[in-house]
Amino acid sequence: MSSPEPVTPVERAVLLARAYLSRVAEPPAAALAAFVEGLGAVEAAERVRRGAVPEHVARETAARRDVDRAQADLACAEGIGARLLVPEDPDWPRWSFAAFGLTGDPTLAPPVAMWVRGPARLTELTERAVAVVGARAATGYGIHVAGDVAGGLADRGCAVVSGAAIGIDGAAHRGALAADGTTVAVLACGIDRAYPAAHAALLQRIAERGLVVSEYPPTAVPAKHRFLVRNRLLAGMAGGTLVVEAGLRSGAQRTAADARALGRLVMAVPGPVTSGMSAGCHELIRQGALLVSRVEEVLEAVGRLGLDLAGDPARPVHPTDGLDPAQIRVHDALPARAARDIRWLTLESGLPMEAVRPALVELERRGLAEYREGRWQRPSRARTGQAT
Amino acid sequence: MSSPEPVTPVERAVLLARAYLSRVAEPPAAALAAFVEGLGAVEAAERVRRGAVPEHVARETAARRDVDRAQADLACAEGIGARLLVPEDPDWPRWSFAAFGLTGDPTLAPPVAMWVRGPARLTELTERAVAVVGARAATGYGIHVAGDVAGGLADRGCAVVSGAAIGIDGAAHRGALAADGTTVAVLACGIDRAYPAAHAALLQRIAERGLVVSEYPPTAVPAKHRFLVRNRLLAGMAGGTLVVEAGLRSGAQRTAADARALGRLVMAVPGPVTSGMSAGCHELIRQGALLVSRVEEVLEAVGRLGLDLAGDPARPVHPTDGLDPAQIRVHDALPARAARDIRWLTLESGLPMEAVRPALVELERRGLAEYREGRWQRPSRARTGQAT
Repeated sequence: MSSPEPVTPVERAVLLARAYLSRVAEPPAAALAAFVEGLGAVEAAERVRRGAVPEHVARETAARRDVDRAQADLACAEGIGARLLVPEDPDWPRWSFAAFGLTGDPTLAPPVAMWVRGPARLTELTERAVAVVGARAATGYGIHVAGDVAGGLADRGCAVVSGAAIGIDGAAHRGALAADGTTVAVLACGIDRAYPAAHAALLQRIAERGLVVSEYPPTAVPAKHRFLVRNRLLAGMAGGTLVVEAGLRSGAQRTAADARALGRLVMAVPGPVTSGMSAGCHELIRQGALLVSRVEEVLEAVGRLGLDLAGDPARPVHPTDGLDPAQIRVHDALPARAARDIRWLTLESGLPMEAVRPALVELERRGLAEYREGRWQRPSRARTGQAT
Repeated sequence: MSSPEPVTPVERAVLLARAYLSRVAEPPAAALAAFVEGLGAVEAAERVRRGAVPEHVARETAARRDVDRAQADLACAEGIGARLLVPEDPDWPRWSFAAFGLTGDPTLAPPVAMWVRGPARLTELTERAVAVVGARAATGYGIHVAGDVAGGLADRGCAVVSGAAIGIDGAAHRGALAADGTTVAVLACGIDRAYPAAHAALLQRIAERGLVVSEYPPTAVPAKHRFLVRNRLLAGMAGGTLVVEAGLRSGAQRTAADARALGRLVMAVPGPVTSGMSAGCHELIRQGALLVSRVEEVLEAVGRLGLDLAGDPARPVHPTDGLDPAQIRVHDALPARAARDIRWLTLESGLPMEAVRPALVELERRGLAEYREGRWQRPSRARTGQAT
């Protein structure tokens, strides 16, 4: 359960500065993110503390700039086996998160730091990760599909990112764990909180084998707007976002919108049109999201070019496969019982004699026609079976 | 049940010629169609009869050119209240069928004539028609959706075209009839045959109120390849083809391919990914077919420009709808029970005092915040309900 040591230790001063900054502004804090990016964490934190910041940074930081619990927060994290992951750390997912800076949308500002708990390495897992999200009030169908897809992804070395909520999220995490895969839970509250309470044991298992992540400082409560804000991290950590079930106005649709804004692939699982829990998925597909019905299709869409192509789905095979149109027409014309001569078959099929003859030869070769005393018919059922 | 008289009576000689031609070649007969188009029906029939035709026409007509049952077929049709609809008749759907000649695909050749039974006028109904097709081995879900969509289409003056098969087709015809709408059954056998036998009564009702159509002469048997060949007429009569349920290798997918080749819209209804009967629909959507989940979406897609726009689906309404981000954050921060002062709310929301104050005013105006003795909290549940 212990977190791995950072590859290159980050200076204590940087950790303290980022811990302070992670509490001073309510995410997403676009102005602060840009300010920190420009000055470096230590200098930026110092100026925020003094109030020596531009107007737009002040708007984001003025209310809490006197609150510095950095030492206590870092100690709290250490106490539960968590640590503060900062952009200065080699394990910061800089490539995945680069999109945050490119959108120009202030609601998609990058986090100033993330509190993480668990053995998994974000840089590694974000190379091949899918966010699997969906409704809390999921149906049995959605729960089944979410678990199934997540298990299949995990099975093929793909990390499953989700939001630890009741319903689809929980099923996705469980499916990945059951397949001994890596799963990441991104919380909308402090990393020291088990929310929802019903998922306390699940979060514990994720922290032991995957990663629990939050941009909120310890003790932060799961306020409603934080779920929406958090969704951008789900989308940003994954190459694609898969919505399994969603109502027409749902957080999952918001995650999908974030994924689209970040240039990531949006996928959705269809379901019965009679189910309100699939209505959001259908709307997403109508708006351009990729319909996926099998885990292979997800992997093909988010996978490395050419390495994860989905094979064609298994199709039924018919004994008449590969026949040309004339052969099919003669086969259709062949009586099952009372055998008929070529002239009759010519009339029935509407084909000239010189086309009927070679067709019969080929049908006989395949065991699809039987010749008896100058007449033709279909073979007995037993032989047709062998001919397949 | 009687067929209406043709608007302009077609000459008997033309009817006899087309009746002969409808039996002489097995559809699709592209060479014959072009030959008849060039020479006119009477002259073309005369030459076919004599064998005075180019090589490629001979290939299509040599086998049956000596069979002339035109008189008997016309009499048989008359006996069951049917008639021969020919391109010379003003009710021939020439605009809908024009696409057949444009594809260059010989398997999409136009029919030389169609045997029809029923009061509906093809020229009228093809102006606003949707083909609703799907699997024979449909599930209860598919049957329900097919009937529902067909009823909704019929209700809005849209004709429902289908193939009279067991399963989705039957449900579509029934749905349209139940809504007192117009429905067209296109058969793969002679119009005098009730096939499938289980649909004898259904076909009778369609003939009484809509239209039963076949390009095959009376007594023609429903050979297997004829179902596939027939599908092009379904696609050609409709502005769009809707596949409700289909396996991965199905006639419905073939109808969809025909519709696409004819430049018509292809739509598909999604379903559970766990159902093999929806797999063909999902494949079609992945290949570019439009996902539709409501009859309004079908109408919008095939409808007249701007006249049939689907309204947005009904969405849930929340009491916090229309709040700006600051107001939402303050609302999130508001305690449900123990009231707090503005300073506390400033810290909790991370917003400056000058943003918290106006947010509280607006929340109070909407009944989402309550002010008591210098402190704020959420109103009691009863009041929140009223505020919606």
